[in-house]
Amino acid sequence: MTDRYLIVSSDCHAGLPTEEYRPYLESRFHRAFDDFLAQRDARRAAMTRLGVRNEAFAAQWFQDNAEGLRGGWDSAQRDKELDGDGVAAEVVFPDADAVDSATAAPFGVGLGLSGDHDPELGMAGARAHNRWLVEFCALNPLRRCGVALLPITGETDQVVAEIRRAKETGLGALMIPAMWGGNPPYHDRRYDPVWAEAEALRMPVVTHSGTAPRHEYGDHLGIFVSEVTWWPARPLWFLLWSGVFERFPGLRFGVAESGCWWLPNLLWFMDRLYLGAHGGKKLSPFAELRQAPSAYLDRNVFICATNTKRRELAHRYEIGVDNILWGSDFPHPEGTWPSTREWLRNTFHDIPVSEARRMLGLAALDVFGFDAEALRPVAARIGPLPRELGQPEDQTAVERSWARARETGRHWLTGDDFPYLGKEEA
Amino acid sequence: MTDRYLIVSSDCHAGLPTEEYRPYLESRFHRAFDDFLAQRDARRAAMTRLGVRNEAFAAQWFQDNAEGLRGGWDSAQRDKELDGDGVAAEVVFPDADAVDSATAAPFGVGLGLSGDHDPELGMAGARAHNRWLVEFCALNPLRRCGVALLPITGETDQVVAEIRRAKETGLGALMIPAMWGGNPPYHDRRYDPVWAEAEALRMPVVTHSGTAPRHEYGDHLGIFVSEVTWWPARPLWFLLWSGVFERFPGLRFGVAESGCWWLPNLLWFMDRLYLGAHGGKKLSPFAELRQAPSAYLDRNVFICATNTKRRELAHRYEIGVDNILWGSDFPHPEGTWPSTREWLRNTFHDIPVSEARRMLGLAALDVFGFDAEALRPVAARIGPLPRELGQPEDQTAVERSWARARETGRHWLTGDDFPYLGKEEA
Repeated sequence: MTDRYLIVSSDCHAGLPTEEYRPYLESRFHRAFDDFLAQRDARRAAMTRLGVRNEAFAAQWFQDNAEGLRGGWDSAQRDKELDGDGVAAEVVFPDADAVDSATAAPFGVGLGLSGDHDPELGMAGARAHNRWLVEFCALNPLRRCGVALLPITGETDQVVAEIRRAKETGLGALMIPAMWGGNPPYHDRRYDPVWAEAEALRMPVVTHSGTAPRHEYGDHLGIFVSEVTWWPARPLWFLLWSGVFERFPGLRFGVAESGCWWLPNLLWFMDRLYLGAHGGKKLSPFAELRQAPSAYLDRNVFICATNTKRRELAHRYEIGVDNILWGSDFPHPEGTWPSTREWLRNTFHDIPVSEARRMLGLAALDVFGFDAEALRPVAARIGPLPRELGQPEDQTAVERSWARARETGRHWLTGDDFPYLGKEEA
Repeated sequence: MTDRYLIVSSDCHAGLPTEEYRPYLESRFHRAFDDFLAQRDARRAAMTRLGVRNEAFAAQWFQDNAEGLRGGWDSAQRDKELDGDGVAAEVVFPDADAVDSATAAPFGVGLGLSGDHDPELGMAGARAHNRWLVEFCALNPLRRCGVALLPITGETDQVVAEIRRAKETGLGALMIPAMWGGNPPYHDRRYDPVWAEAEALRMPVVTHSGTAPRHEYGDHLGIFVSEVTWWPARPLWFLLWSGVFERFPGLRFGVAESGCWWLPNLLWFMDRLYLGAHGGKKLSPFAELRQAPSAYLDRNVFICATNTKRRELAHRYEIGVDNILWGSDFPHPEGTWPSTREWLRNTFHDIPVSEARRMLGLAALDVFGFDAEALRPVAARIGPLPRELGQPEDQTAVERSWARARETGRHWLTGDDFPYLGKEEA
């Protein structure tokens, strides 16, 4: 109880103010880049019309956080902000500015990365961001795992080359488009060389929320928000059921900033199907798998669950404690910065310390290959103590309050018809 | 405890062997109908390749159930099968044969109803089925609520006319395509006359699982099954967030044969968003709604949850007991026929009788406008007794075992951070 938490944020964001990407972009794309910059106002107007951008909130947000927000691309400022939050290490996704999109990666290939991007421009924009990110992470490599942008629907040789370049230059993970657009879906064997290279180089592959079929939503914000977490999760069952995790047992695939609340039902549904539920008796066998979907999940999948909700924590024995990777989402307003310590206390005070340590850091260390030993001194300096998270010294009652939920676990595998979610009176 | 259950199946299927629809189809479509029939083998081969049709299972199924399966279109046989199952009344969807598709409605507008159908052929096929269904339901109108097929992406005047014709001829509900294909999504105001007419005539509008973007799945059955329940649910949040339930407060919308396990998370997610969760603070207000999404759900939405699973019943206080409408799915093999009584015992034995009565019949009576008084003698003749469902005479312990889950209910509205799902030791 005197060990400070080693906290890893599995979902943070960094990116240059868009116009500053120019030196990182090959000059033959500069004219297209000028066109992209010129359409910035139109893009912002569309976001405002949909309601994703609220004028009044935006004004207040930038006024209140001017200094800290520079941490989106300023390395020293960033260290200061992460220290303040008690976060020892982070996984760095693109697009620091989630309010005005002023730091969008060139051609919108950051959180807007989509299979429908022009292949040439898409790869050019991705490389520009990746080049900058290499420099940015190199300023504090111990604490930063950079996520390379990887538009995998383009030409496979180029995609594989970009994976190698990302690895060689020190990046640690690969973000692929959540949607393949008009290109072949991710069950297609054309992507096998991509999965093979990611597996061989131990580069986790991740989707991140952001893309969605906006043309279908009109200006109805609620529709967008209701399903913007489904699209990035969708590749998970495309990979799983087409046997990608069987062919590439070392591949790690993750879904970022889409919550983890949807996972228990998905696992229950898929496991039952595979294990011969009545509802599937008329179907052919699932010959591409050799074990239940949840077994692949535990081996191959992780969830960058970002700002975990209390409801999600109640589901953690169905999801798998080690599959939940917390994140602060710095510097996005929907995240926990700059009040992460308070958020952690409100969220984790009655969760066992042993499990909180895994969700708040240990699981992410493993997935993203951070150097745990080298990070310990950082954690010892800035990490919160369990008592600062409101966790009692004597954990007996806390552990007991979750005993039945833990024992029931994935009830469909433990012989229970009913789930058991929620805390008992201690 | 001596009252027999009045059981309503909110999801059954009936349809003619396809070729017998010819007399119900306007003659100018007969040539197109011949073409449709000629492609039957190709369609069956595609289903077999995807794995939705398993040769060995199909052979056994038809051998074992030859007599009962005639109840898919033979009225007297159907009554006998429903009596055997203890089902007093039913909601009649299309496509009796879910194994070989030998009773597919003309042009595949039954469970395959899609916004991408040719508008003229789609409406012609729908009308043919609707004409037959009128006759079929008229043979036992007390026990059958026929669901008219309604391809609403076609010409609005024709759609509205078909709603009126369906009502006048005795049908009781409207099935719309789960997917709009290349047509305007269901938030579009072009559909307002459709919702208005359905509201005015008290015709519930329903989607049913079946359609999905199969071209994206290759031959990977697991992908298909994993998301075939999402597509029919999708219109729910399109209608809700675009204010359809605000503009048409009397409209009832339902999702059939897609389970109800996904609803608690959706309600939690949408309610929190509307009520101002931190994650939505950067967004504009949801001006199209005047109350929380769950309030619309309780007023406007129902779920034909078909063969309810024990896990789903554990979620019933979050879903809303009266929003869950059980169904037998007769005569589909994934349903409970011909062993419905046994299924009910296995599923409901430790659920309070008072709640089981609502999910097994009372809620559906209300939604579909059955004549409850006239059905009582039928139920008194064929319905099971609570003790035949294994439900104890003294319900005190059963009620107590669910007390905490019931009190917690929708925890995000009752002040609880954590859900509480599952039965306490009695």
